[in-house]
Amino acid sequence: MNSLIVLRTLGMLLLCEAVAMLPPVVVALIYREDTVFAFLISMAVAVLIGLMLFSIRVKNKIIRYKEGFAIVTFGWLAVSILGALPFLFTGAITSFIDAFFETVSGFTTTGATVLEDIEVLPYSLLFWRSFTHWLGGMGILVLALALAPALGGGTFQILKAESPGPISTKLTPRVNNTAKILYVTYTVITAAEILLLYIGGMPLFDSFIHTFGTLGTGGFSLKNASIGAYGSVYFDTVITFFMIASGVNFSLYYIMFKKRNLSGFIKDSEFKTYLSIIAVAILLVTLNLNGKVYSSIFESMRHASFQVASIITTTGYTTTDFDIWPDLSRAVLFLLMFVGACAGSTGGAMKVIRVHLAFKYMKREVNRLIHPRAVKAVKVGNVPVQEEVLSGVMAFTMFYILIFITVTLLMAMQGHDLISSAAATAATLGNVGPGFGIVGPTSTYYALSGFSKALLSFCMILGRLEIYTVITLLSPHFWKR
Amino acid sequence: MNSLIVLRTLGMLLLCEAVAMLPPVVVALIYREDTVFAFLISMAVAVLIGLMLFSIRVKNKIIRYKEGFAIVTFGWLAVSILGALPFLFTGAITSFIDAFFETVSGFTTTGATVLEDIEVLPYSLLFWRSFTHWLGGMGILVLALALAPALGGGTFQILKAESPGPISTKLTPRVNNTAKILYVTYTVITAAEILLLYIGGMPLFDSFIHTFGTLGTGGFSLKNASIGAYGSVYFDTVITFFMIASGVNFSLYYIMFKKRNLSGFIKDSEFKTYLSIIAVAILLVTLNLNGKVYSSIFESMRHASFQVASIITTTGYTTTDFDIWPDLSRAVLFLLMFVGACAGSTGGAMKVIRVHLAFKYMKREVNRLIHPRAVKAVKVGNVPVQEEVLSGVMAFTMFYILIFITVTLLMAMQGHDLISSAAATAATLGNVGPGFGIVGPTSTYYALSGFSKALLSFCMILGRLEIYTVITLLSPHFWKR
Repeated sequence: MNSLIVLRTLGMLLLCEAVAMLPPVVVALIYREDTVFAFLISMAVAVLIGLMLFSIRVKNKIIRYKEGFAIVTFGWLAVSILGALPFLFTGAITSFIDAFFETVSGFTTTGATVLEDIEVLPYSLLFWRSFTHWLGGMGILVLALALAPALGGGTFQILKAESPGPISTKLTPRVNNTAKILYVTYTVITAAEILLLYIGGMPLFDSFIHTFGTLGTGGFSLKNASIGAYGSVYFDTVITFFMIASGVNFSLYYIMFKKRNLSGFIKDSEFKTYLSIIAVAILLVTLNLNGKVYSSIFESMRHASFQVASIITTTGYTTTDFDIWPDLSRAVLFLLMFVGACAGSTGGAMKVIRVHLAFKYMKREVNRLIHPRAVKAVKVGNVPVQEEVLSGVMAFTMFYILIFITVTLLMAMQGHDLISSAAATAATLGNVGPGFGIVGPTSTYYALSGFSKALLSFCMILGRLEIYTVITLLSPHFWKR
Repeated sequence: MNSLIVLRTLGMLLLCEAVAMLPPVVVALIYREDTVFAFLISMAVAVLIGLMLFSIRVKNKIIRYKEGFAIVTFGWLAVSILGALPFLFTGAITSFIDAFFETVSGFTTTGATVLEDIEVLPYSLLFWRSFTHWLGGMGILVLALALAPALGGGTFQILKAESPGPISTKLTPRVNNTAKILYVTYTVITAAEILLLYIGGMPLFDSFIHTFGTLGTGGFSLKNASIGAYGSVYFDTVITFFMIASGVNFSLYYIMFKKRNLSGFIKDSEFKTYLSIIAVAILLVTLNLNGKVYSSIFESMRHASFQVASIITTTGYTTTDFDIWPDLSRAVLFLLMFVGACAGSTGGAMKVIRVHLAFKYMKREVNRLIHPRAVKAVKVGNVPVQEEVLSGVMAFTMFYILIFITVTLLMAMQGHDLISSAAATAATLGNVGPGFGIVGPTSTYYALSGFSKALLSFCMILGRLEIYTVITLLSPHFWKR
């Protein structure tokens, strides 16, 4: 383990974070807020520590996968700790664990909040809070790019196996180039959503905030009632569309721009499965809501579509309190928290492709029993998937479920009811945000114990980094020479 | 598919069932009950259909695994349909689906009941009801024997891989011999428990009933309050011991009798894991109950031990209403419903060995990420496990979870709350019996809809036959030549 290069890279990351605090300072100046000083101090701390680390002399500059895992995990942790400073220095949040939770939730694009009244926050802080979503979303796209070949059965390995897009590229000099294309795509979609919300009548600042939350599939709003505060069919529709778009493998956009047609989307089996799951879920929830919660089929479908899109993409925006919906609808949403969006998107949870592969794997096992001598490779589209990737997917699924069960138990041990415990775990591990019960859409994570907040923060990072990265670091084998 | 040999074998099975209805007739005569006629008619129907099927002329007498799967699945179904007749003919249960549910629950050794007051049932019917547990338990031991080599990743394949006992033997002439040894073991343990309960002061008839329920890990009682009706520490202890003993791989008893020492138990890693899980669960529940539900540590441990043993072995006897226990204890019990007992026992659910293997599989995947070129075989004890067995185990686990989720959704769709829906599914799929909420220990499955009862009956058979047997039958590939 080349610790020096890890520390140096973390230093670079903190310097980038200091630069990322400039936009909120601009916001503070525009709105003449007294938060400027808090941001400048935070920046100074980030720069100081960043420079200290970055100045470490490193002889061996090779970053292998071991170092990659360490950089990614400690990186997400470091930016979250430093990113919490503005909340503390402005006094908006007084406890460190709360500020840390809020920032982890931002950078991991979860959107779980401890703030009981976000509408009293200064604009600059609201901007910073949502900006972490946008940065985190971009970060996860780089991660997909950089660690692609290393993570067996991880999104990245699967991407490599399936799509011929930029994310499948190995860690070569070409990375910088493909990364740029991704960033441009990300920025173009961001601009499009801001524009569409703004011309629909949403204030410009609000449009920025909600676009950051949508693109990063985060879910932080500046209204306590989230998107429901506007009560606008137009906003609901635009945000539903962009949530679904942000849950798509970004390499498909790359192909679209390059080939100037939609062939990438048409061929991609994960994309088709993703849309099918969304369609079935919307249908189920609409039928379940109609006549029970809403009197018109249009209203039922409107809220069903928004909520299904919001949960499967792990965004977490809400138009209504879905926790009072009938049990079937809640169960569907709960399941979607596990499925998550497409690999190579900014969305979290298990990812559609893994669910897809797990089903194919199960089907093959049944066929194996019937025709033991005719075992075929599992294919995605027409490409056979390597056995190691499949093993990785199955083990990943087990890890996901096991972590979910363990954390749910740890939550229940603290006296929370089972549904709330399970929902809080699923919503943080899947980077969704709101859950059910005590962490439902009309509630926050504020009332939880410090231990719970630390535990769920860990879940957010675990989920965001697709478990393996973090688990590998926790394995004693990792640290042996 | 050789359908004729399947039908002929089913005929033989029904003839056996007719013979099995003799003991209840004897009970009816002893207690001078007017149920004799109902049992005789049921027997006549079974003999008639049995003879008709058994008289089918079969040229090709070879039973391959395809036929094996069909015999087992349709066999369990057929004996449950015919076994329901005494309930209907005596008028104890008036609806067919209820009588079918009760009998499936008996033969699959689940112990879920639709009878709201079992204490009013005639003795002969109580005997028949519990006798199905005992027969079902014996049946599953034969099944383990007969289908051992066919079920990839099934208990049977694993047994073959791990234990050198009788169950691991292939389908050879020696089967009859080893089967006899198993039956003797089963009968000896049965006699031992009846004796111990009887000399402790339990009426002889009650001792029979509860021993049938224990050995088959079924859970039917003749008291509405189950074992709690006696309020006896002695009975609780004896039954706890025998429940745990019935959850052990029966080949270990074979080794014990043969070698006259305990080396089989000491070496068996599944047995050790099983005891460890029980110990940890009892500890957790005891600590959670103490001071909250019971004032003394002894009372807490007494009920914790009984309930943990009852649930992990999938028996389902109760000494108290565990549904009013704190959430942590309920969560532990809920998880144990999935783990289940050892492979090759009469217990149900996923089985300890599968959970054990799944953990080892996950550990290997993490090691693979760290040392991609040093992938080792997963071992149980010192024996490496074949990759196909591991694939089978992983796919089995997924199927189990998937069926659990699907059925829970189907239950929730009918308007039941989530906890009750999940508990009813887990308790029937795992052949446990009582669950939580509307199917909790003080309640029954009576109030559920006919659809729910049919669905949960299906789950009981699915769980009892370890999923693959049934799923293979449902696969279109199975029926192709």
